[in-house]
Amino acid sequence: MKTGKPSHYTARQRVAANLRRVRQARGWSQEALADLAGLHRTYVGSIERGERNVSVDNIERLAQALGLDPADLLKRPA
Amino acid sequence: MKTGKPSHYTARQRVAANLRRVRQARGWSQEALADLAGLHRTYVGSIERGERNVSVDNIERLAQALGLDPADLLKRPA
Repeated sequence: MKTGKPSHYTARQRVAANLRRVRQARGWSQEALADLAGLHRTYVGSIERGERNVSVDNIERLAQALGLDPADLLKRPA
Repeated sequence: MKTGKPSHYTARQRVAANLRRVRQARGWSQEALADLAGLHRTYVGSIERGERNVSVDNIERLAQALGLDPADLLKRPA
């Protein structure tokens, strides 16, 4: 994002926060989630840190692995 | 997606359908939406056809241009 000082979560930050929160609630490691989603562990870690501009296809893979609807990963974290 | 015969919209197809529906409801051309979102018209067209694996940053740009929450673009079309 090119925005300067976001006063709220960007969509990327939402995905990052939701992914980490739900994964940890499941008691899963990044590696376990990555295996289930067919992605690499370090890639999942970088998504959780908001470093990657994750694509909609990978949002879907991660949501499916977590048993979520893809839209849930984009929701504003509580 | 590597799935064979989806019985439902993929996340990519959801974005495609929602984007087109809301853009048309606004009475906007693809070019008008693209200009507002800072994207190219042909890119917006390819997203609406489900040809592009659009990223979360661009989902946010498109949602902002349409006055939607980013999660709305991922919701299952009605």
